Amino acid sequence: MDFDAMFASQLDALKAEGNYRVFAELERRCGAFPRAHSHDENAPDEVTVWCSNDYLGMGQHPVVAQAMKDTVDQCGTGAGGTRNISGTNRHHVALEADLADLHGKEAALLFTSGYVSNWAALSTLGSRLPDAVILSDEKNHASMIEGIRHSRAQKVIWKHNDPEDLDAKLSALPANAPKIVAFESVYSMDGDICPMEEIIEVAEKHGAMTYLDEVHAVGLYGPRGGGISEARGLAHRITLIEGTLGKAFGCMGGYVTGSAALCDFIRSFASGFIFTTALPPAIAAAAQASIAHLKVSAVEREQQRCQVAKLRGMLDQRGIPHLANESHIIPVMIKDPVKCRMLADILMRDFGIYVQPINYPTVPKGTERLRLTPGPLHSDADLVHLVDALATLWKQCALSHAVA
Amino acid sequence: MDFDAMFASQLDALKAEGNYRVFAELERRCGAFPRAHSHDENAPDEVTVWCSNDYLGMGQHPVVAQAMKDTVDQCGTGAGGTRNISGTNRHHVALEADLADLHGKEAALLFTSGYVSNWAALSTLGSRLPDAVILSDEKNHASMIEGIRHSRAQKVIWKHNDPEDLDAKLSALPANAPKIVAFESVYSMDGDICPMEEIIEVAEKHGAMTYLDEVHAVGLYGPRGGGISEARGLAHRITLIEGTLGKAFGCMGGYVTGSAALCDFIRSFASGFIFTTALPPAIAAAAQASIAHLKVSAVEREQQRCQVAKLRGMLDQRGIPHLANESHIIPVMIKDPVKCRMLADILMRDFGIYVQPINYPTVPKGTERLRLTPGPLHSDADLVHLVDALATLWKQCALSHAVA
Repeated sequence: MDFDAMFASQLDALKAEGNYRVFAELERRCGAFPRAHSHDENAPDEVTVWCSNDYLGMGQHPVVAQAMKDTVDQCGTGAGGTRNISGTNRHHVALEADLADLHGKEAALLFTSGYVSNWAALSTLGSRLPDAVILSDEKNHASMIEGIRHSRAQKVIWKHNDPEDLDAKLSALPANAPKIVAFESVYSMDGDICPMEEIIEVAEKHGAMTYLDEVHAVGLYGPRGGGISEARGLAHRITLIEGTLGKAFGCMGGYVTGSAALCDFIRSFASGFIFTTALPPAIAAAAQASIAHLKVSAVEREQQRCQVAKLRGMLDQRGIPHLANESHIIPVMIKDPVKCRMLADILMRDFGIYVQPINYPTVPKGTERLRLTPGPLHSDADLVHLVDALATLWKQCALSHAVA
Repeated sequence: MDFDAMFASQLDALKAEGNYRVFAELERRCGAFPRAHSHDENAPDEVTVWCSNDYLGMGQHPVVAQAMKDTVDQCGTGAGGTRNISGTNRHHVALEADLADLHGKEAALLFTSGYVSNWAALSTLGSRLPDAVILSDEKNHASMIEGIRHSRAQKVIWKHNDPEDLDAKLSALPANAPKIVAFESVYSMDGDICPMEEIIEVAEKHGAMTYLDEVHAVGLYGPRGGGISEARGLAHRITLIEGTLGKAFGCMGGYVTGSAALCDFIRSFASGFIFTTALPPAIAAAAQASIAHLKVSAVEREQQRCQVAKLRGMLDQRGIPHLANESHIIPVMIKDPVKCRMLADILMRDFGIYVQPINYPTVPKGTERLRLTPGPLHSDADLVHLVDALATLWKQCALSHAVA
């Protein structure tokens, strides 16, 4: 059987619809973020990255880098085993305590990624709580969708950020079934923020557990970087808060926090936690340093907010359409995969601006976009250069100037 | 609804059957492996680790540690994004080329862990190849089982390491269905090695794809550390070889290698690859250094084999039962979860020997064991100390001296 031909034909279909992905090959430069060296033929040697999820530049912070290197010196490179079989280091245990503290919870549990934390936690809760029903916001991340799917629990999708629809869907379910309301605080691709208090109230009314993904908010919102749930004083009313160490904290890994019983339950039953090598101790130590820094330092968050506001204002002035939202994510809508790729290619080649075209399956077909994430390390001159480049292309391409 | 009570009741059941897991909290000491500092109350300060999957001690190799630290200096701590959205660094691309070379394949694809590589690759192949049937060895790892389950493809389980049974099962399937034969080279918990050539011949006869998990073999077998498939000259006849960077290579991460079309297919369609932050560049660089070293240095492998053979001989002399196999894994069978935990606790407390009790769900109930993994850094004195301790306990506990 010619498997390669089968693979090639599905890849050809992707290419024909403009959704085939080409990765930009970069070399991050510690001390020079958001500047990076590009290894792509058609790009200048140095480019400015406008689409990183290292939102605050903590991935190059001296304290974080030093913690990682010191721990390599102390403990070596890898963990050497699963958490159960020789892989638990002091750094994992200490980091879990720090994460529990960050969200004001009894306990926390580390995973190798945010994806795995969502997939493993939801699939375990959904499969092990008898007759569980998971109520999932329709725009939830792929990792949550796959976790729910894997659990084989009953799944009910509610309208995006719509507590009334959630209420109606919860009302239609048997009173005695365990219910899990799964949603995000900041949605990655549109940058909108959920009506958290209203969702919590609806969930509480029905005795449902709340499962909140804060991956695009931890480190960024709240006085100590505890996310939107901290900023709004609602963390204590959420059953489980899930987060990542790979975005604002600048490292790698994911986690859940909640009651001691909840974390012990997932620890004891989740295949995706049990059967995998633990994070390197050096990564755990680096994450600890990053979290500790952002618990007390607001400079990075304030400077980010400032640059985000400036960029929005400049885009408005030049008539470049972008989605309105309250977060740090600025989606510039293109709505066509081929044009989106073309614009990104020109920005890279002619202007040294790297912003990855976002296409299917990351966003629905027809909503392709450039997703800008200004950070504290983008200078005012960077903003001007970006907006000038976009304005030039907007004229050339005669794209719509109306707000999407 | 009292969710905590629901969690507690399932945890109580685990405790009652002796399968509740307590993690040993260690602190690996770079330069002193297999010695580690223990943070557990009931253990001496310093213990010797006998159950690490950092099989060759590469997690403390100076070249590997230096590569990791240098790359933190150059590129910072995290990748900052998914592979598609700003997360691809030169180190990922170079590491993929090195992995393709290691297995003599056209291409390779990196994942955040071996677990994710199996789960994502099998779920993608099984779900996207129309009418695919996955034929899975009955002792395959949890990550493969979950990947197959997630794919919702038809699954056929064949008897462990039994090519005749595989042949019979393949013969019963429609000739034109795409078939994937999934198996491992070295099985982690029993340490037995598959009859690879016979399995390949059966698969080839039926036009089936072969999917081989080499996570407990890469770095350890074959003249360049390419695994059992390299040692037996069979890599070119395997469709997909999956491996890990987290065991013998001493780092973190997983990968698949195969044809360019195969890797591009998984790259383009696997949710678990697309929607997750890339490995830190420093981890990729450390893995590159480790792979490069083990491609040319056989010292570590030879010394490991030597210590494994010595330990087997010493166990036999003292009548301590262990499973016979051709690998580096020595399972000492206890067959009771409570006794297994008790023995491990005494070894830790009284002898400073850390060997984690292996219980359900890692192994079937009734096959609980101590799993020993001697490496090149265990001294002869370490072997004597271990065997003396085991022999003392064997007498005290009056356990069976017959080979299991």
